[in-house]
Amino acid sequence: MSLTVVGSIAFDAVETEGGKRDRLLGGAAVHFSLASSFLAETRIVGPVGDDFGAAEYAVLHDRGVITDDVEHVPGGKTFFWAGRYERDVNIRHTLQTDLNVFETFEPKLSQASRDADVLFLANIQPDLQRAVREQCAGARFSALDTMNLWIDIAHESLVKTIKTVDCLIVNDGEVKQLTDEPNLVRAARAVMELGPKVVVVKQGEYGSAMYTPEGVFGLPAYPTADVVDPTGAGDTFAGGFMGYVAAHADEEISDGLLRRAMAYGTALASFNVEAFGTERMQTLTPDEVNERVQELARVTVFDASPVPLRA
Amino acid sequence: MSLTVVGSIAFDAVETEGGKRDRLLGGAAVHFSLASSFLAETRIVGPVGDDFGAAEYAVLHDRGVITDDVEHVPGGKTFFWAGRYERDVNIRHTLQTDLNVFETFEPKLSQASRDADVLFLANIQPDLQRAVREQCAGARFSALDTMNLWIDIAHESLVKTIKTVDCLIVNDGEVKQLTDEPNLVRAARAVMELGPKVVVVKQGEYGSAMYTPEGVFGLPAYPTADVVDPTGAGDTFAGGFMGYVAAHADEEISDGLLRRAMAYGTALASFNVEAFGTERMQTLTPDEVNERVQELARVTVFDASPVPLRA
Repeated sequence: MSLTVVGSIAFDAVETEGGKRDRLLGGAAVHFSLASSFLAETRIVGPVGDDFGAAEYAVLHDRGVITDDVEHVPGGKTFFWAGRYERDVNIRHTLQTDLNVFETFEPKLSQASRDADVLFLANIQPDLQRAVREQCAGARFSALDTMNLWIDIAHESLVKTIKTVDCLIVNDGEVKQLTDEPNLVRAARAVMELGPKVVVVKQGEYGSAMYTPEGVFGLPAYPTADVVDPTGAGDTFAGGFMGYVAAHADEEISDGLLRRAMAYGTALASFNVEAFGTERMQTLTPDEVNERVQELARVTVFDASPVPLRA
Repeated sequence: MSLTVVGSIAFDAVETEGGKRDRLLGGAAVHFSLASSFLAETRIVGPVGDDFGAAEYAVLHDRGVITDDVEHVPGGKTFFWAGRYERDVNIRHTLQTDLNVFETFEPKLSQASRDADVLFLANIQPDLQRAVREQCAGARFSALDTMNLWIDIAHESLVKTIKTVDCLIVNDGEVKQLTDEPNLVRAARAVMELGPKVVVVKQGEYGSAMYTPEGVFGLPAYPTADVVDPTGAGDTFAGGFMGYVAAHADEEISDGLLRRAMAYGTALASFNVEAFGTERMQTLTPDEVNERVQELARVTVFDASPVPLRA
């Protein structure tokens, strides 16, 4: 039942056509854990500085996220990211990245975090991800995310780390870049040859795809007219996905279970984008999440009965 | 039951990483009608030159396509398009476009074509599309495709034409450009405000989405590792979609029927890309098509039963 996530805890400054916020709670591990908290008890591991205070902890604690392994670096400043989205929110410009306490981060997991049933390695340097994976050797299901930077400058280490996890959860462009294969089916197969049995590909506004030994699953994004701030959508998706796996510890991790996990990830991500930062996730209710999964089923269903065709 | 398509009949020269062909049968109306021929009797309307011979007619006739309204322009040459696809076949470069007989094309429909139950206006100049629409005033269901060129240089005429049809079938980028709205849900709504009750958005490798008064439908593309030549995939999709509507004349055109139509369009398009030009469609069998629709259902299905969530 227990889930550990290791990754960034951040303050974000976000500009969109509709508004501007200077200091939003953010970071991959934060977005992930707020989503996963709807499904499973979640332990978050990552560094923060002196500027990370009671208000920020409260957002996590209100969702039951266990922050024992949040490492406070005295005298340090929390990771900071600033970005601007164009009117087409699919186009994002990074304006500033200050690693701050993240620069010297060496994940130290408590025994409780090491005992995790399910482990998610959010996007950090792949050597660090591998060190965490080694500390959580007993995890029943492990996954990692990464980014173009590591694919470029730490390819060998990244591949070594990918070999140690059950599942890769990355963007469309990243899996193609990682494998140097522009066709998604082939790219996913190439990842599976490295080791992971499951490849989950995030496709932004188009949805997501999953490759398992049992087949391929494709799921559109939940169609929403109101995208306020897409920051953290991918991490929220991963949180719902991994949380679902953690919540169903009594079930075999089948293709069917992972499909349901994808639906919960998709539903949760669709809420995350409806407001700035973590604002929407803070007010979200379980009923809203389940209702959106049902709506997603209505969005995707069709009758495939064969019809007479002309030879 | 009868379906009329008006649009280009062409010779294509296509270069890919895997090969090069100098003279393939192509054109929107050809790709469309080969697909729709699996579902409904199809009449193709478009001009050809002296270079369009028995071999080309045979491809259409072998699929039962009625070519009575193919207009032979004596002394003319058939529309010619040359393009190159990168290793990532989602990136296409047009190398040459010779309008030839298309330059002076004025669609003249026989009574049989005018009596069409279902009408598809493939991508041609919107004034011409509107003239055809007026000739087929009795069609039970009509749709049109267009392109960025007409959105740019004939916007007013295009909007006037869109108002006259039941359905718009265009690419993702085109519907956003047409409506100046980067969010797909809002873009589709904006089109529906112009008149069409149905908006179908083609998203290439990601699949397609449909907006009707009853809701939104999202369908991934059929996952294929073997894309040889994507030329005509969108027209093939439209052919399957419109063919399905034409084939079910006894049914109300409901959201459910149109979803099934999308599945047939998607399945047919996935075959079209497996070989150059029309080659794969020429050998395709009804059983293969129905089987792929079933596979598409397996690719998209998931269990949306609500689960206990943590408050």
